[in-house]
Amino acid sequence: MLQTEKLQRVLSRMEAEGIPQLLVTDPAAVFWLTGKWIHPGERFLGLLLAKDKEPVLYINALFMFPADIGVRKVYYSDTDSITELLRRDIDPSLPLGVDKILPARFLLPLMEAGIAAGFVNGSVLVDTERSLKDETEREKMRAASIINDKAMEQFKGLVYEGVTEKEVAARLEGIYRALGASGHSFDPIVAFGDNAADPHHMPDDTKLREGDIVLFDVGCVLDDYCSDMTRTFFFKKEPDEETKRIYNLVRRANETAESVLRPGIPLCEIDKTARDIITEGGYGPNFTHRLGHFIGVEVHEYGDVSAAFDCPAMPGNVFSIEPGIYAPGTAGVRIEDLVLITETGYEVLNHYPHDIEVIG
Amino acid sequence: MLQTEKLQRVLSRMEAEGIPQLLVTDPAAVFWLTGKWIHPGERFLGLLLAKDKEPVLYINALFMFPADIGVRKVYYSDTDSITELLRRDIDPSLPLGVDKILPARFLLPLMEAGIAAGFVNGSVLVDTERSLKDETEREKMRAASIINDKAMEQFKGLVYEGVTEKEVAARLEGIYRALGASGHSFDPIVAFGDNAADPHHMPDDTKLREGDIVLFDVGCVLDDYCSDMTRTFFFKKEPDEETKRIYNLVRRANETAESVLRPGIPLCEIDKTARDIITEGGYGPNFTHRLGHFIGVEVHEYGDVSAAFDCPAMPGNVFSIEPGIYAPGTAGVRIEDLVLITETGYEVLNHYPHDIEVIG
Repeated sequence: MLQTEKLQRVLSRMEAEGIPQLLVTDPAAVFWLTGKWIHPGERFLGLLLAKDKEPVLYINALFMFPADIGVRKVYYSDTDSITELLRRDIDPSLPLGVDKILPARFLLPLMEAGIAAGFVNGSVLVDTERSLKDETEREKMRAASIINDKAMEQFKGLVYEGVTEKEVAARLEGIYRALGASGHSFDPIVAFGDNAADPHHMPDDTKLREGDIVLFDVGCVLDDYCSDMTRTFFFKKEPDEETKRIYNLVRRANETAESVLRPGIPLCEIDKTARDIITEGGYGPNFTHRLGHFIGVEVHEYGDVSAAFDCPAMPGNVFSIEPGIYAPGTAGVRIEDLVLITETGYEVLNHYPHDIEVIG
Repeated sequence: MLQTEKLQRVLSRMEAEGIPQLLVTDPAAVFWLTGKWIHPGERFLGLLLAKDKEPVLYINALFMFPADIGVRKVYYSDTDSITELLRRDIDPSLPLGVDKILPARFLLPLMEAGIAAGFVNGSVLVDTERSLKDETEREKMRAASIINDKAMEQFKGLVYEGVTEKEVAARLEGIYRALGASGHSFDPIVAFGDNAADPHHMPDDTKLREGDIVLFDVGCVLDDYCSDMTRTFFFKKEPDEETKRIYNLVRRANETAESVLRPGIPLCEIDKTARDIITEGGYGPNFTHRLGHFIGVEVHEYGDVSAAFDCPAMPGNVFSIEPGIYAPGTAGVRIEDLVLITETGYEVLNHYPHDIEVIG
């Protein structure tokens, strides 16, 4: 399927922002713009967009494919110079927008060769368009999150006294695949007990014991779109009073932040809504990260729900709402949903309940 | 364990090459230099090395850790400016070596701020040192490849009439883990029949049928070091004469290339040795990639065994020897081993035989 509409949206935005030529190199952006996933590894991949010119896709010949994807394909080999390849199509009298991820090993030679009249980070043009999901994309995001809800129901059944985080983590992908997903959207976090108080804990050989917190931060890919959800459970025992208080603060932060969602609300205000609740509850310093991140074809896309991001939420934006409190020695709790901003309000894409739940 | 010796080797090489300050941002290089894996995702991670100064590691506070790893740690938060952070320690009157992977979103602002007197790709300093494996690293590479040999013995037992590539691929990781590895070193290639004639084929729903080729290109990670090996089997039936001829050409290319290995031989000569055999056999155009790649902490490290790389092989280099012939409609065959250049010769790290083998 030709993604001509998406290419057109980016070309219009380039014109509006005064970027006459743009070199897109992020494989996820190339996929979003062309419908074709190419994983070049360390090799160069580039899609050159310029006003009134046919888009050109530069691909290593190793990744040759026959399909027409609406762009001119130029194959190169491992011994070709990328700079010379691009020189044929880039106008040296005009500035060039480059991808935020373009590595120095490609950018520095382009600069030395004077291939363009200046270089700017032009990713925001593509990334902003990517954040405005169309109806087909929204449907895929909904479907991926529904699988995540169903998977969470099964994940909590995997735990038993003495099982390790790694053992549980190794079994998640099979469940996702059985539900129709193609795999994880990121390395899953399974955290027992005090490990839940580390927001980036990676599953290790910690064994589950009665009274432990069990935190799952997990997501899958369905039809090229990602899901991402966190739930915090309690193994075999009701949490103590302080942990309950922490849990309910996080829950209230999550639900209140979701309730204020609407097109036009500054993203920083959503963060503030959640953060104020946690701060007033006395745990401000223990909420150590942004409230959320944008998501789509990639699990982390351009766009933050944080104090640093004052742009308004736009219809089609999909992001996480994931307040957390990390109090080592006491408790670690995070509750995360994906949400979609619609033309008139919002949808929460996850439906797994927020209630305190004792499992095992 | 402090990796002071490795830091010292890179600092000496910086001095020899006239790079007074170097910003290492590749997490694998940071791991190699400090012994600490940090996976920053899209966030900034940097290790600044400069003559007569303590190395400084810039880490997002999300990834805080207590261990002393022999460098000064500087934590930053999501709202800090990376440029301002680095400005404190980078000397603006001197050029700065940057990492080959430093993304444009960090590099362009550093340039605009005039943080250094010029920017060069300085990765080769670290990468060259990384390619000279010390005895501890060699031992880890040997051990990872021995697991790969053992795993291959089990992988061939996974196939049966009608099984799909994806089903087989999904079972490899369990075998690796049972053998003590921590996981795959890359997404495994399992290719049946004509799919073997695509060197970058990804496992799909193709079902195995009698007479098919079964190609495994697989590797695991053990103790942070990678293995990588390819074997091509035949399912239930001896290959036909043309396929046998192709197989034996590839095998001879592999074994002859291995036999010429010695410290000092230009890497391009090793490639040529294998390529000449395949070309003389009439299949030159069907051997579409370089003969091999360097490997270590990452499955692809700096260093190619290709026409483009005329440096001499050095003691401690570990790379793949992986000739292949890709003739869609006839056969696809690749035979790959890892090899280590020693002070006096070489070792082949894989021991799984090269003979034609009918399985299933």
